[in-house]
Amino acid sequence: MSTTSVLRTVVIALGGNAITAEDQSGTYAEMLVNCQRMAKAVNALVDGGWRVVVTHGNGPQVGNLSLQQGAAEPTVPAQPLSSLVAMTQGWLGGLIELALRNTGSASMPPVVSVVTHVVVDPRDPGFLKLTKPIGPFYEKDAAQARTDELGWQMVEDSGRGYRRVVASPHPVSMLESDAIATLVDKGFLVIAAGGGGVPVIRSQGLLQGVDAVVDKDRAAAILAAQLKADALLLVTGVDSVLLDFGKPTQRALHDVGAEEMLRHNDDGQFPSGSMGPKVEAAVEYLGQCNGQAVITSVDKMVPALEGMKGVGTRIRRTTVRVP
Amino acid sequence: MSTTSVLRTVVIALGGNAITAEDQSGTYAEMLVNCQRMAKAVNALVDGGWRVVVTHGNGPQVGNLSLQQGAAEPTVPAQPLSSLVAMTQGWLGGLIELALRNTGSASMPPVVSVVTHVVVDPRDPGFLKLTKPIGPFYEKDAAQARTDELGWQMVEDSGRGYRRVVASPHPVSMLESDAIATLVDKGFLVIAAGGGGVPVIRSQGLLQGVDAVVDKDRAAAILAAQLKADALLLVTGVDSVLLDFGKPTQRALHDVGAEEMLRHNDDGQFPSGSMGPKVEAAVEYLGQCNGQAVITSVDKMVPALEGMKGVGTRIRRTTVRVP
Repeated sequence: MSTTSVLRTVVIALGGNAITAEDQSGTYAEMLVNCQRMAKAVNALVDGGWRVVVTHGNGPQVGNLSLQQGAAEPTVPAQPLSSLVAMTQGWLGGLIELALRNTGSASMPPVVSVVTHVVVDPRDPGFLKLTKPIGPFYEKDAAQARTDELGWQMVEDSGRGYRRVVASPHPVSMLESDAIATLVDKGFLVIAAGGGGVPVIRSQGLLQGVDAVVDKDRAAAILAAQLKADALLLVTGVDSVLLDFGKPTQRALHDVGAEEMLRHNDDGQFPSGSMGPKVEAAVEYLGQCNGQAVITSVDKMVPALEGMKGVGTRIRRTTVRVP
Repeated sequence: MSTTSVLRTVVIALGGNAITAEDQSGTYAEMLVNCQRMAKAVNALVDGGWRVVVTHGNGPQVGNLSLQQGAAEPTVPAQPLSSLVAMTQGWLGGLIELALRNTGSASMPPVVSVVTHVVVDPRDPGFLKLTKPIGPFYEKDAAQARTDELGWQMVEDSGRGYRRVVASPHPVSMLESDAIATLVDKGFLVIAAGGGGVPVIRSQGLLQGVDAVVDKDRAAAILAAQLKADALLLVTGVDSVLLDFGKPTQRALHDVGAEEMLRHNDDGQFPSGSMGPKVEAAVEYLGQCNGQAVITSVDKMVPALEGMKGVGTRIRRTTVRVP
């Protein structure tokens, strides 16, 4: 049931934890239930008159694939990280698609999942200092063997063993944005840029996969900008972005300008591992697109997008105060 | 360089062995080289003025994923076969896409890979008698444990151990055929229906994945029919279909009608594991679409499609003799 005659487009970024929760091991049954819940939330957006592009994380799932690859070596050749990301796009994209088709909602458009590559810059500083831990923990000797044989960079992780670290470069563009735009324009609900996209660089004119992980919120922001989407919706565990978290002065931000948001970020208001990247992704989108970036919880998506007072955090190029 | 002003559409089915050869273990390096070769062949079709939809097998790759899943149990929960097929669609679709984009050909359209589900009938006789062996070999005790714990049906395979067998039902339709048609219409080269498609059934109105493998040639035939493609191209190891194989009367078929082809099939001319399903897929497509089905080798694709005398096997609804 559309509330407007001209549909607006929103790119929504859901966490990999929305598909496998932190206390789950990642069974098929768990994933089906989680995808159903996710589909119900997305359906509320559709009913709210939005054209939806779904992006999703893949942290727990790519971790499991890494473990499986390691367990079968050397019998079965392990594939590079870029291929594992591509695997999760087929796997999770397929499950989310079926869940959306199974909502039984008359307003649900046909759904399609697109394998999406994200172009990154080989000169991105992220490639100089590897920061993103992925996959299983290894004992010291096994970790050294990985470095010797595969060139992996390993770091000791808080006494729990050694983990591989990879680059987390900024996304430049999505290779398939034109295909995705075509499908959105024709009324399809598109699932794309899963896991932040399959990372590729251009080297001497050729595209090649690289071992890296692109932040899914930043990836969603770039996709939203390429699609000229009306809104970017970053879903998180809290209803609104909070300032002075845990202090007596703690307060929620609801309608705020991009510059103010950046100032709070510079002031160290947002942790670098969680809200910080979301704020930066929101500002990145607004730098390329004059829409609204919304950060809120899965339960508040529709009212937050519609501008309900005191619900969600809406970021625009310039601050628009709700009267 | 198009030879006609109105582009014709061809759905091409490539084997999983085209990505990992039978004597290879499936390393990333091997796959990249094979995908380059495949891309060059597909590019020749594009240069011949064809709109191309690429479908591909996944036998060696889904086998490797099965091995990896088994090696990491019970630490990491194994996923059902339908999810493994979906993984190979992201993985292989992504690699083929990059190889096509890397041909550097000015005539190559933008390429996109679509996660594709194939609907099968839960009453398909294929579900009553499981015939398709997949994944690794197990010792007798381990095989029994799989049956007890997971309900897998296992068969003894020519003295090499026990293997899981799954259903190989006929494809009914591709869920994403409209999305694929939209992309083809807008000029994209689409990779779809990898591994025969992710098999799903409709049960009480809901779509759900099933443990089955759909023959990739039959899947390509159904997709070609849904797209109303001008041609279905089934790539195999020989240039033409042969009658009386290995006998003094051996001869190649070049231009032949569907009924004649079926008659040869009924006469036992084609082995059930190889050419038989291709012939049946060709006839299935012709039953729904008045185009041409071509069976030939990767080297002869273009001349076979263009009707060159004595090259490839072209099957039509009715026999058209080349003068």
